Amino acid sequence: MTGRYLIGLDFGTLSVRGVLIDAESGIAIDYHASPYRHGVMSGSLADGTPLPSGFALQDAHDYVVAAEEVLCRLGQHRHILSIGIDFTASSPLPATADGTPLSALLPNEPHAYVKLWKHAAAQRYADAINAAGGAFLDNFGGRLSGEWLLAKAAQVASEAPTVWALTERFIEAGDWMVSQLTGCEARNLGFAAYKAQYSAATGYPEGIVPGLNARLAPPLKAGSPAGELNAEWRRKAGIKGPAVVAVAVIDSHAVLPAVGAVEDGMAAGALGTSAAYLFLAERPLSLPAGLEGMARDGSLPGFWLHEAGQAAFGDLLAWFVRTFPRGSDLAASFAAYNAEAAMLEPGDSHLVGLDWWNGNRVPHADSRLSGLLMGFGMDTTAAGIYRALMEAICYGTRQVMELAAAGSLGTGRVVMTSGLAETNPLLLTIMADVLGRDIELPEIAHATATGAAIHGAVAAGVVADFRDGAARFGARSRRVFHPDPDRSKRYQPLFSIYCELASLTPVQAAMRRIGPQRRAPDNAPNAIAGPSLEDGKLTATFG
Amino acid sequence: MTGRYLIGLDFGTLSVRGVLIDAESGIAIDYHASPYRHGVMSGSLADGTPLPSGFALQDAHDYVVAAEEVLCRLGQHRHILSIGIDFTASSPLPATADGTPLSALLPNEPHAYVKLWKHAAAQRYADAINAAGGAFLDNFGGRLSGEWLLAKAAQVASEAPTVWALTERFIEAGDWMVSQLTGCEARNLGFAAYKAQYSAATGYPEGIVPGLNARLAPPLKAGSPAGELNAEWRRKAGIKGPAVVAVAVIDSHAVLPAVGAVEDGMAAGALGTSAAYLFLAERPLSLPAGLEGMARDGSLPGFWLHEAGQAAFGDLLAWFVRTFPRGSDLAASFAAYNAEAAMLEPGDSHLVGLDWWNGNRVPHADSRLSGLLMGFGMDTTAAGIYRALMEAICYGTRQVMELAAAGSLGTGRVVMTSGLAETNPLLLTIMADVLGRDIELPEIAHATATGAAIHGAVAAGVVADFRDGAARFGARSRRVFHPDPDRSKRYQPLFSIYCELASLTPVQAAMRRIGPQRRAPDNAPNAIAGPSLEDGKLTATFG
Repeated sequence: MTGRYLIGLDFGTLSVRGVLIDAESGIAIDYHASPYRHGVMSGSLADGTPLPSGFALQDAHDYVVAAEEVLCRLGQHRHILSIGIDFTASSPLPATADGTPLSALLPNEPHAYVKLWKHAAAQRYADAINAAGGAFLDNFGGRLSGEWLLAKAAQVASEAPTVWALTERFIEAGDWMVSQLTGCEARNLGFAAYKAQYSAATGYPEGIVPGLNARLAPPLKAGSPAGELNAEWRRKAGIKGPAVVAVAVIDSHAVLPAVGAVEDGMAAGALGTSAAYLFLAERPLSLPAGLEGMARDGSLPGFWLHEAGQAAFGDLLAWFVRTFPRGSDLAASFAAYNAEAAMLEPGDSHLVGLDWWNGNRVPHADSRLSGLLMGFGMDTTAAGIYRALMEAICYGTRQVMELAAAGSLGTGRVVMTSGLAETNPLLLTIMADVLGRDIELPEIAHATATGAAIHGAVAAGVVADFRDGAARFGARSRRVFHPDPDRSKRYQPLFSIYCELASLTPVQAAMRRIGPQRRAPDNAPNAIAGPSLEDGKLTATFG
Repeated sequence: MTGRYLIGLDFGTLSVRGVLIDAESGIAIDYHASPYRHGVMSGSLADGTPLPSGFALQDAHDYVVAAEEVLCRLGQHRHILSIGIDFTASSPLPATADGTPLSALLPNEPHAYVKLWKHAAAQRYADAINAAGGAFLDNFGGRLSGEWLLAKAAQVASEAPTVWALTERFIEAGDWMVSQLTGCEARNLGFAAYKAQYSAATGYPEGIVPGLNARLAPPLKAGSPAGELNAEWRRKAGIKGPAVVAVAVIDSHAVLPAVGAVEDGMAAGALGTSAAYLFLAERPLSLPAGLEGMARDGSLPGFWLHEAGQAAFGDLLAWFVRTFPRGSDLAASFAAYNAEAAMLEPGDSHLVGLDWWNGNRVPHADSRLSGLLMGFGMDTTAAGIYRALMEAICYGTRQVMELAAAGSLGTGRVVMTSGLAETNPLLLTIMADVLGRDIELPEIAHATATGAAIHGAVAAGVVADFRDGAARFGARSRRVFHPDPDRSKRYQPLFSIYCELASLTPVQAAMRRIGPQRRAPDNAPNAIAGPSLEDGKLTATFG
């Protein structure tokens, strides 16, 4: 082997997935995944220390062990030009100035661990910050999520002052991983902007959490080099070559160059367990109500990137098929339901549903909302319900798209990455009909890790820019789902009903009263979308 | 055999069920059921003539054939004191003055047949009559149902003027059956009042359907003798004795004396496929909004009887278990779901539902409404949904009871007859908790047919009155479900959410837009409630 290679590392919720790309041909020649030893800790820490409700922690050391396995496997004896990293977010951890995670010093202290993106126990801190308000929320619909860094920092400072006192750096796990690999702290603008409300003009917001800003650091644009892989890692992994490490990038944003989403006006979606949508704009636009986040240069230099998403997507279908199995295994059940649902036309089920099984992200940003199905009769069938769930998640997609369009976003091509598409083309057919738009599915394996690799290639100067990187290393073919005009028309009144239901304040109030915030058990099949997602395909997270 | 006997005949939707009671001991010594040859004709007539959507017809000749089989089996060579009859309603047919059904003369004319209670195709005539309004609607919440006689007469007159011209009598099938048995037309005040808006003070309403009143006849109080069994029937059935035939009674009202519901202030329910509730009052009360019907003497002399009901009850649970089976047969599935649902506490499912799978009867009287479930999350289980459906139908019961109580009705004992209770005591337990009241279940087989027999006994003077009849021939034991105070309290906020959802106008509007009125296929398992109802237990109909 005398070639030169790129490595992309995609740090997901349960494992890190790595791809090795031949820099000359652009072909991904190897792939390896390594699960985190402790997965997600929600019931208790590894030593048995019980965790309060809503906690979702990870052990930063697990990332190092898993990354080492993947880098050894992909990089050993190879000339590596660059390494790009994407990571879940906001997944911050408290560390000392030299990068030691406090969990290594205080192993039985929950607040010393990484608060994973889905850690829900900081919501009341977000509520308090939101109640106080401030200009820093303007780009985020006026509301902070309990899953973001500011809320998580506030929780540590409030509930574990001793831990907070020992915390010298409060850092996203993605940035922390880069610092581990290079020895240099080089934070990413995307993490800072979307999760810590940093703005290039005014910096991090002041006075939200006492002492927080001293524990942060100014961030760098996406695609910036953080440094070269340090000596210890070169030795451990047997890697040769410059191995320039790029600053990390939010996992859901990493996919963009891999799927060719590098043009003004494009909408790029990731349809997995949940669904995440990104809207690219070269000019600054006013944020449409209900859409989230706005930052320039954080994920693709030169672009403002707006975020939106659906909290439940493929996992909603998986929930149904698991709850009401029809075959020997999940795949057989999916096949049976898909076959029957494909025989139905728009409106045949007489059901309209709200896809809020995991709460609603856009436009309500409320995890206490819950799923609803309406229209049941004695002739309602199981396949009718399944189809109604498919339609409901597509109505949810359309609602996001219409909100975006109201802000002149997403008016260009629509590109979706979807592990579901291969096993469930019916879902994409329904989505094209519901949206009334062509949906492009780039055909590329390991799109997120490939996107991370392109970040590395840009940082190392292997390519001129992301457009060049997309052309050389991104998807080379695409499948297009075209809407059927007749079916599209018949979905119109059903979508109107969805929108009406979704806007009924008394229904939302009732949902909030019905019960506590509920989440899927961690490490459960719930965390996986369709069967195809289990073999390493893209998993959408909230970023 | 030298005894004397009563016969009760219960003409249901699919069959006639007869009971033979020993007049001396009060014990039911024989039972026989005979299905109607053509069942319910909804797709086409027997000769293949297709039927429009919403049609549900029966052939009156089927009643005669089935009645003959039952009377032969029960009455042959026996000394019969009396025969009482109950019948579905409103199930009117056009006939000549001598009682010949027009279907015998015009066998391929749909409008010549009995329009069964669930015939839905006359709704637009009810809508038109309601739009015109009139004082005759005052006792019926201002609204006529499309299932009642006036709407069905309007449909015949409008859509089949030739049939209407030949129609000399437009008569409820129950009254018609009595005329067949006795040779005398003797209509029942209950049919006339509840289904044709007759009032003792003003008679039948004038000018609703041209020529209708000439085709009706003044009705008699419940328990009145219509005549003796005529010679032809005595010969056919081999019956001896006076065999006094009582005027017919609405099937759901017939049950009252059989279950001891002969006291002021009582509420009597029939929990079957659907649920029907009756409220007894000795004094006239203003009709609470949402409750239906008010007439004196129609079903029990001396009592005003108010009606209410739920369009779906046991069939809602059966729908779920059929749609998502869990065992080798329906009974095994019910058992599995009941066992799991019994482990849940109030609120555990986090679901609240509207039990409108067949539309809503009280308070909205709208068959275009449909079922709804709210509160889904990734942790929602199949048993949780099943339990939520049980709770939803019990919330529906409580809503009816609260409406009644607002009018000072149903404040006394609550007696339910329920074929579901034996196989599904959990449902009655939940109902007691949701209502916060004791629920009495009289233990009696063939309660409706027994009630009909008591009508016969009153008509024949075998007993002094219905109270006496209830004591001698009615239920002799009862099971009581007591509410658990803690669970009752925990159902309170959930019931409040049910009431809020049930009152949301935009939700109702959306339901009406989702699709056409849908009904269970006729003669399908949908028409049967729980497994226990198949062996001849009480089936609740709307009456």
